[in-house]
Amino acid sequence: MTTLPTPHSQHEELSAAIDELALIDHHCHSLFSTPLTDQQVEDHLTESPDARAARTTTFDSNLGLATLRWAGPLLGLDPPVSREAYLEARRSIAPRDLISKSLAAAGVSDLLVDTGFHPDDLVNLEELSKLSPARVHEIARIETRAEELLAATDSPEQFLQAWPELLANLDPNVVGLKSVAAYRCGLDLAGTHPSRAEVLFALGHQLQQRPLRLTDPTVISYLVITAIEITRLPVQFHIGIGDPDVRLATGHPGHLQNLIEFALRLETPICLLHCYPYHREAALLAHDYPNVYLDLGLALNFVGPRASEILSETLELAPYAKLLYSSDAFGLAELNYLGALQFRRSLTDHLTLLVEDDYLSLDTALRLATLMGRETAKTVYRLPTT
Amino acid sequence: MTTLPTPHSQHEELSAAIDELALIDHHCHSLFSTPLTDQQVEDHLTESPDARAARTTTFDSNLGLATLRWAGPLLGLDPPVSREAYLEARRSIAPRDLISKSLAAAGVSDLLVDTGFHPDDLVNLEELSKLSPARVHEIARIETRAEELLAATDSPEQFLQAWPELLANLDPNVVGLKSVAAYRCGLDLAGTHPSRAEVLFALGHQLQQRPLRLTDPTVISYLVITAIEITRLPVQFHIGIGDPDVRLATGHPGHLQNLIEFALRLETPICLLHCYPYHREAALLAHDYPNVYLDLGLALNFVGPRASEILSETLELAPYAKLLYSSDAFGLAELNYLGALQFRRSLTDHLTLLVEDDYLSLDTALRLATLMGRETAKTVYRLPTT
Amino acid sequence: MTTLPTPHSQHEELSAAIDELALIDHHCHSLFSTPLTDQQVEDHLTESPDARAARTTTFDSNLGLATLRWAGPLLGLDPPVSREAYLEARRSIAPRDLISKSLAAAGVSDLLVDTGFHPDDLVNLEELSKLSPARVHEIARIETRAEELLAATDSPEQFLQAWPELLANLDPNVVGLKSVAAYRCGLDLAGTHPSRAEVLFALGHQLQQRPLRLTDPTVISYLVITAIEITRLPVQFHIGIGDPDVRLATGHPGHLQNLIEFALRLETPICLLHCYPYHREAALLAHDYPNVYLDLGLALNFVGPRASEILSETLELAPYAKLLYSSDAFGLAELNYLGALQFRRSLTDHLTLLVEDDYLSLDTALRLATLMGRETAKTVYRLPTT
Repeated sequence: MTTLPTPHSQHEELSAAIDELALIDHHCHSLFSTPLTDQQVEDHLTESPDARAARTTTFDSNLGLATLRWAGPLLGLDPPVSREAYLEARRSIAPRDLISKSLAAAGVSDLLVDTGFHPDDLVNLEELSKLSPARVHEIARIETRAEELLAATDSPEQFLQAWPELLANLDPNVVGLKSVAAYRCGLDLAGTHPSRAEVLFALGHQLQQRPLRLTDPTVISYLVITAIEITRLPVQFHIGIGDPDVRLATGHPGHLQNLIEFALRLETPICLLHCYPYHREAALLAHDYPNVYLDLGLALNFVGPRASEILSETLELAPYAKLLYSSDAFGLAELNYLGALQFRRSLTDHLTLLVEDDYLSLDTALRLATLMGRETAKTVYRLPTT
Repeated sequence: MTTLPTPHSQHEELSAAIDELALIDHHCHSLFSTPLTDQQVEDHLTESPDARAARTTTFDSNLGLATLRWAGPLLGLDPPVSREAYLEARRSIAPRDLISKSLAAAGVSDLLVDTGFHPDDLVNLEELSKLSPARVHEIARIETRAEELLAATDSPEQFLQAWPELLANLDPNVVGLKSVAAYRCGLDLAGTHPSRAEVLFALGHQLQQRPLRLTDPTVISYLVITAIEITRLPVQFHIGIGDPDVRLATGHPGHLQNLIEFALRLETPICLLHCYPYHREAALLAHDYPNVYLDLGLALNFVGPRASEILSETLELAPYAKLLYSSDAFGLAELNYLGALQFRRSLTDHLTLLVEDDYLSLDTALRLATLMGRETAKTVYRLPTT
Repeated sequence: MTTLPTPHSQHEELSAAIDELALIDHHCHSLFSTPLTDQQVEDHLTESPDARAARTTTFDSNLGLATLRWAGPLLGLDPPVSREAYLEARRSIAPRDLISKSLAAAGVSDLLVDTGFHPDDLVNLEELSKLSPARVHEIARIETRAEELLAATDSPEQFLQAWPELLANLDPNVVGLKSVAAYRCGLDLAGTHPSRAEVLFALGHQLQQRPLRLTDPTVISYLVITAIEITRLPVQFHIGIGDPDVRLATGHPGHLQNLIEFALRLETPICLLHCYPYHREAALLAHDYPNVYLDLGLALNFVGPRASEILSETLELAPYAKLLYSSDAFGLAELNYLGALQFRRSLTDHLTLLVEDDYLSLDTALRLATLMGRETAKTVYRLPTT
């Protein structure tokens, strides 16, 4: 590769190369197979369970504006795009066509799909695989699997026997696990096995509550620790930005240090998802621990025009080979495309400045982009190499 | 409105329109009616109770530099303005003339004045109203009102009878309440009524201390919760930046989630003030909860040349219709003008970038600016519509 | 000094003046006197004890890129510089020559060297003084001195007698103290003397552990509080960014408020080191308390191309006369040079914007730069004035 004479063309060359990179989306969800009302579209442009939290429309937010700006053109609209024009264009395309169009435009080679929350109106993984040029892998959600198992068992004792068996017999398509501890009890999980007696006691208490929703820190610690011991699969943790169930004060990623050190002794990767507004703290953990990786997932879409800044803040401390890509798209297919676009644009902005200021060569910039866009994820999740 | 051909003129058009917007300052204080010594001026350019905290002069700070840069010209000086020239010009203007000049230049239609800390050398609300083209409303400080009532009652039991009566009979000019829990016990307030016995016990304990200063979390929780129940008025909470009484470790806005959820059930707005350095965390709360609003108040003045950056960081997650304007000006009238100017400039910078990059039209930008500058505040505080 | 006509030349003039400023590096370590393998160089370009934390090479990080970009030219290389070229050039220079070259280029008048962790392959202070044009002073690490003393005493009681004597008889070259409480028990230290009984009990417990490593919060509080009482020397606290022993959740600088207030009553300076990612919070403490100072130390080197942004974030609230310079260089001499360069460049960037926007005159900018680069440190550590 020849080093080109002007900064402008370096930006163009970097941009072109990063646009062609086949991304691995290491954390996303499935997508709606049914037509949506305008209100349903709005409801999925916020983490709030109550769209009134936006007071006007959820389009009056950085995520809303980024959707209009970048997904509008995907639907054939010229920016600036109004909310009304966007919703009209979106109504005129069939849900499965939108999935195909958005995933093709996203340029993703692999989707790692969290199936822990999967309402019936989302396409199943088999169909998602057909609609997309990408390979589809599964991420199993620890708390969901445990709740399903508990509903099918008679006693805490029986659960303690069945849970390790479930973990030992996961479907081979499951390439990683996910914990939503941040939504349940906060991130101050144990760094050692809770005792059998403690777990039985806590499980007994949890089973008395209906509907069953695991929130006890001893139970969650037990589930995660056994999952690491038995599967050695990468465990994703939701960090930061999310719905109001996330307790911000107990959701600081620093609370995870004991659990991270447990996983490190078993050489098991921990992947911190989204991280914002704790992305600098999460980056320090990725800096310090060989088994910690992070992404900006949901955050890059939500911050819209600020994505480059957030990416650069994260790379202040995160080693370049520890950052992963995810869209965290749920339901709305255009969020897959938006996520990929936000990631590519931010990376291009960040690396262009470094190349222009002679911090690295264009070759090195592309090597780092490839690590962040796909190579690290391929290694962490041991994905097939074709 | 015609979309203009060049970015430069878009900036000019936005800037002109935002400059003409009549702001609602939803949180400020009253202003000095007496001439100040140079040292007194310096003392009010810091949150520190000890001006030696600046080591040299409080003008050697971003707030100090912003005061020289923007309030200097208000006093007829050409920037760059020296500390000496500024203080000399300020000495030459009568206090009431400075109030009138500054409030006129601020372009504010309504001032919501926190009367919870109001030394005798500040003008009273009636006079403030005469000196200013703005309507003046009152924000009642919960802890101050409770302390005044306690001083006038004989026992905790009598207080528990009188406090709800006080709340039910607030002056009609009181449009909102304020809590300084962050200065007293931190923000980890209860999300449910403390029991009568708990409150009586805690009050008894507090009454033994002289001077009386309410700092017990059970007492503060009781005061805030009853205030919400009885008045349903918006409650402002001081968050973050402040004097050393603010305990940073217990002042994280995430601690407020239980109280916010209590207020949500009663459809009562919670307004987070200042928020810095927790503005991104506060923005997530405004994103998640329909009843949470936020401002950058004090922070926009203090960070001076960095105001645009802080505003953009806040709007990463905050819905545009949830951000309010306040100056938090106390004592020095020029801080009213500076606050309005910092807000207008930051908003113009932020929205200009979005318009230039086709995220939204100029019309939409102006609609959002109007929401942030006045419309949301008018709704939240149910201000008269004329 | 004449104010020059164009922004460009203002930048040049500021840059030239700041480049000539003799910095005081108020916190650094000693440097390797022995040749290093490539792996050893890599191992010192991260805070992680395991270089695998970078997954590829520690040069794939902002610190690595900044080292190549700025220390490369010091070794005669033209940027962009590859990892291989850098390591080769570094191997070709003798360790003591690199120390002399780097310290001369750093333009530092005084080095305050933390001797609390000082392996044998570092040069001693006497030799460091010969290799460098700078004066060399010592910073004594509280926990290290206490551990050495404990190893030499027979009982907790004997230690309680000997520790105050040690503090009262420090070498006159010791100009400050340092605590690594953040690595041991977190920052929630007591603000008053623990009782003798408490300290004896906790010490007894600690002495039963081998190897001896003080981690008990009562013991650490006792050590720091007596150090302040007896020496009144400035106490440096490690904050934030560091190796995995730092517990992020208990390392928030807000936890230090009680200790800060104790030190304030004894008019003893507290210097917060590094601070990132809590630099805005640390800046608020420096804003509020007359005895609190802060630096960005380690952080400015680690964030590489983002240094100007971090400095500007810190100066949002920190009074300009409260920011200190340090490199925190350990082992690798080029980090002394890099630290000074990052500080000078960031300061120039920050102040140039202010001068260009008429916030201050070039004269004032230079006065503030001199405060931050050397004058404040000279006062705080009572350094000789020649």
